[in-house]
Amino acid sequence: MLGCGRAATVIAAGSGWWVRCLRGRCCRRLLLSMAKSKFEYVRDFEADDTCLPNCWIVVRLDGRNFHRFSEQHEFKKPNDDRALHLMTKCAQTVMEELEDIAVAYGQSDEYSFVFKKKSRWFKRRASKFMTHVVSQFASSYVFYWKDYFKDQQLLYPPGFDARIVLYPSDQNLKDYLSWRQADCHVNNLYNTVFWMLVKRSGLTPVQAQDRLQGTLAGDKNEILFSEFNINYNNEPLMYRKGTVLVWQKVNEVMTKKIKLPKEAEEKEVEVTRTRTKVVPLHCDIIGDQFWEEYPEILAEDS
Amino acid sequence: MLGCGRAATVIAAGSGWWVRCLRGRCCRRLLLSMAKSKFEYVRDFEADDTCLPNCWIVVRLDGRNFHRFSEQHEFKKPNDDRALHLMTKCAQTVMEELEDIAVAYGQSDEYSFVFKKKSRWFKRRASKFMTHVVSQFASSYVFYWKDYFKDQQLLYPPGFDARIVLYPSDQNLKDYLSWRQADCHVNNLYNTVFWMLVKRSGLTPVQAQDRLQGTLAGDKNEILFSEFNINYNNEPLMYRKGTVLVWQKVNEVMTKKIKLPKEAEEKEVEVTRTRTKVVPLHCDIIGDQFWEEYPEILAEDS
Amino acid sequence: MLGCGRAATVIAAGSGWWVRCLRGRCCRRLLLSMAKSKFEYVRDFEADDTCLPNCWIVVRLDGRNFHRFSEQHEFKKPNDDRALHLMTKCAQTVMEELEDIAVAYGQSDEYSFVFKKKSRWFKRRASKFMTHVVSQFASSYVFYWKDYFKDQQLLYPPGFDARIVLYPSDQNLKDYLSWRQADCHVNNLYNTVFWMLVKRSGLTPVQAQDRLQGTLAGDKNEILFSEFNINYNNEPLMYRKGTVLVWQKVNEVMTKKIKLPKEAEEKEVEVTRTRTKVVPLHCDIIGDQFWEEYPEILAEDS
Amino acid sequence: MLGCGRAATVIAAGSGWWVRCLRGRCCRRLLLSMAKSKFEYVRDFEADDTCLPNCWIVVRLDGRNFHRFSEQHEFKKPNDDRALHLMTKCAQTVMEELEDIAVAYGQSDEYSFVFKKKSRWFKRRASKFMTHVVSQFASSYVFYWKDYFKDQQLLYPPGFDARIVLYPSDQNLKDYLSWRQADCHVNNLYNTVFWMLVKRSGLTPVQAQDRLQGTLAGDKNEILFSEFNINYNNEPLMYRKGTVLVWQKVNEVMTKKIKLPKEAEEKEVEVTRTRTKVVPLHCDIIGDQFWEEYPEILAEDS
Repeated sequence: MLGCGRAATVIAAGSGWWVRCLRGRCCRRLLLSMAKSKFEYVRDFEADDTCLPNCWIVVRLDGRNFHRFSEQHEFKKPNDDRALHLMTKCAQTVMEELEDIAVAYGQSDEYSFVFKKKSRWFKRRASKFMTHVVSQFASSYVFYWKDYFKDQQLLYPPGFDARIVLYPSDQNLKDYLSWRQADCHVNNLYNTVFWMLVKRSGLTPVQAQDRLQGTLAGDKNEILFSEFNINYNNEPLMYRKGTVLVWQKVNEVMTKKIKLPKEAEEKEVEVTRTRTKVVPLHCDIIGDQFWEEYPEILAEDS
Repeated sequence: MLGCGRAATVIAAGSGWWVRCLRGRCCRRLLLSMAKSKFEYVRDFEADDTCLPNCWIVVRLDGRNFHRFSEQHEFKKPNDDRALHLMTKCAQTVMEELEDIAVAYGQSDEYSFVFKKKSRWFKRRASKFMTHVVSQFASSYVFYWKDYFKDQQLLYPPGFDARIVLYPSDQNLKDYLSWRQADCHVNNLYNTVFWMLVKRSGLTPVQAQDRLQGTLAGDKNEILFSEFNINYNNEPLMYRKGTVLVWQKVNEVMTKKIKLPKEAEEKEVEVTRTRTKVVPLHCDIIGDQFWEEYPEILAEDS
Repeated sequence: MLGCGRAATVIAAGSGWWVRCLRGRCCRRLLLSMAKSKFEYVRDFEADDTCLPNCWIVVRLDGRNFHRFSEQHEFKKPNDDRALHLMTKCAQTVMEELEDIAVAYGQSDEYSFVFKKKSRWFKRRASKFMTHVVSQFASSYVFYWKDYFKDQQLLYPPGFDARIVLYPSDQNLKDYLSWRQADCHVNNLYNTVFWMLVKRSGLTPVQAQDRLQGTLAGDKNEILFSEFNINYNNEPLMYRKGTVLVWQKVNEVMTKKIKLPKEAEEKEVEVTRTRTKVVPLHCDIIGDQFWEEYPEILAEDS
Repeated sequence: MLGCGRAATVIAAGSGWWVRCLRGRCCRRLLLSMAKSKFEYVRDFEADDTCLPNCWIVVRLDGRNFHRFSEQHEFKKPNDDRALHLMTKCAQTVMEELEDIAVAYGQSDEYSFVFKKKSRWFKRRASKFMTHVVSQFASSYVFYWKDYFKDQQLLYPPGFDARIVLYPSDQNLKDYLSWRQADCHVNNLYNTVFWMLVKRSGLTPVQAQDRLQGTLAGDKNEILFSEFNINYNNEPLMYRKGTVLVWQKVNEVMTKKIKLPKEAEEKEVEVTRTRTKVVPLHCDIIGDQFWEEYPEILAEDS
């Protein structure tokens, strides 16, 4: 007996079963909802991707084809402040919207997000961490684009990828972040010289590349200094160190209108509220100083 | 000997080593690039997440907190054409920008993308599939928002999550897609009655929910028909079936100006070009007919 | 209050808590069982290793350091019948003791066990499959050693390793088994010539190796035929093809004593019972014939 | 051209290719070795199961169906010294034959092996760790059986299973081992009372179980003391604490015959050699004392 009250013939079809109502399609829909449970076995094919407990969870994202993207949107070389600030705005949004991110570090078209060791967010499912980070970042990138790029139109929606890595010890985590900051330095020094050679000395990209082939950091500094009168040390910290995002308590002073019981009129008073905000820094994170100044990042109960 | 030619003291610090130049920071940078390789061991912590070969790879994404999002952006209930068309536009973008997607299926705030069994894209790394899909979708959602929502402003960047599931056999894949379409039906029938009760009969959401508690599909159809004179079968296919995206060859006729050798002037000619495009359908995919009409989806060499 | 009714001091120690009874150790034990639940969080570190449903599960084991083992136990070269038969006896034991093994294939010091696609044994946990197979095999190897090696004493307990691989399609599985049988052939042909050169022609192992360097199968056959008058085709099938273990229905005739109601004495009758047994074959499994003869191996509901 | 010098027809068959020699099977073998490479794609289906670096790797094995096994081999209840010593002998063999095991802990029919954090054995592949441990243990169990069970015949080869778990911090590892030792205590106290009630008081197993239902540790101690005059504290440590296996330097004194240059005859001298051996302990490992006495177990460079 089916929903319409008529008899039905159950017909085995393929690997499943199906029912054909003798009078027509009117009860097809009841069957559909029965069918739903028939198909639900496919849920068992989903694998468990729980992250090992008591490890730092790092999600690093990268822009997809950002070489092409940066050319089409006329990014300044070697560093475009608008692009860097937009990246940081998106990363801030990710930290504020998602749970349990203790610190983040970004440079160029990449950003790393560090989730707390003890995080139980989404039962530590790797796919949840990766996809929430990368989708929130990507939608923010388009959403906030115009705030940073003004009249430079966004031509198409950009893509990003992300990966997840676990670090068991605090030292492993510090070394990971050091690795990214060292990478920032190496690339930025190279790019700074490269673009000087191209823009100021008129070399073609291939000539500039040849010139830099095999040079050490000292050589590159020397070229910058002797040929372009640039002391690399004086380049902006954001370019040389990248951006660290940390949580900081900040005092916010706001005026509030209140009405005291015995007084007739409202009165404006200043109220100081302590909020925890995501703050960008451009400091060294390889040495110990940073970790001593921000002990709460690694704190067990943070 | 360091880059600056001065002696240096190597200092063992923590689990690593560091070097302090005796005269200052001038050679810090050379050390940094040496340090990079010191930290690079952290790459070994990245786990291999290669998908088993010869399986269908399905990535399904869902809107994050879309209940709240749909209210804040005044989506029409139970179905908002603008939102559904925007979802489909984003899914089309994903199919066109990424490689090896054979078919996609969407309903409500979810979309499933099916990658070919034989796909070697990014060496079948699960994280690449998930994050490329979800980030491209998310950025497209913001990018194309205004084309569908006109004067309805986007208030904040939305989030999505995604998961990946493997299906070894064609039957498993068909059953997966059937499961999603059966889910679409069950939800849409419920929502259609629910919102009728709320909007037309003036029930509160809680009253509507109570009324529907325990009803079967047949009961819901009966309510729709007897109380609201609605034949559910006549509801739009897009609502009842969701949206299937397939690749289709389409002929495009364009006019081209050409100059023939012996003639002085350019001439306009019509040129027909065959292109493969992503096309939305709103048909049944549970029965065999769809798979017989689109055999190339399951074809081994597709 | 504790088990002994005395007050106790709870002392925070390390990351945990502990209790010190003021009068002595008498209630230590109650605390221990309370402690058990305190430590049980460590169970959450165990990862889920469920195998993807609807795939063939293959466990292949290999002898550990069997080169050394075979020398110390004076295995005949290139093939020792006692060793090969013992391997097969162990594999039979594995098939009979464990669940859902459809077919097995062995050669040299390796054996592959194929579990049915639909097996739900131990919820398809990979570690269970691997370790049950390899431990049953290892204990059987020592247990049955003396039945095959007679007066040759077993000098120490041998080790084995095992791995697990999933195959989504029947063709993948056949190709896996073909790969192992092709490997058997290639190795056995090489070994047959190699040991002829060493034993009959008096070459040192290094000389024999040099002689065979770069030779093709045809060359090796030629050496066997022209120098040792051996037609490789006539070598025993077990050496050339390895061993396939399949389930076969066999009729067993046994005599049973029964007492009929009306008769005074017991009577012996012959009873034929059909049993399913593991049977060794030494046939080709690369071509289609084997699979046509044993269709139940690949049968969906097998 | 094939091995036999004759022409061949290449025939596409199934998903592969095959070659049929026009004159017969004589060159089948060359083709087989070519075929080997054709089938080798199946190797790509093997998944990478590398353990996360810088984590303790624990492999725990358990007897399969040891309830039945212990009855059939007439183990003494609640503890059989022969069985416990055999387990420990097998575990010692595992520690000596395999690499990088820092400590092991056993009780009843289970044993846990702890591999060093920094171990690179077999590239940290999980399957290698599990299967080498369990197979070495299983073969040793049969091999050494007669040394412990004398005239008690081993009736069939026993099975074991094993699992692998990672622990990121030293505290996690200690808590794991504490969990197992607390489990040993809880079970042994229960079993001690249970078997007293059965053997001395003549209760049936079901009656004994009912009697103990809901009792706390203190109650069980009380039963032991008042009914059987047993102070549980005086029960053997091996039963109450299980067995810890550690590496210890031991001095071995041996006599060696040496011939001094100027003397005519050989002379016996005593030589003391320091060896590292696996030594069994039956001490508490929950408190700090054990870890203070054996700091090398957790030492970074151990």
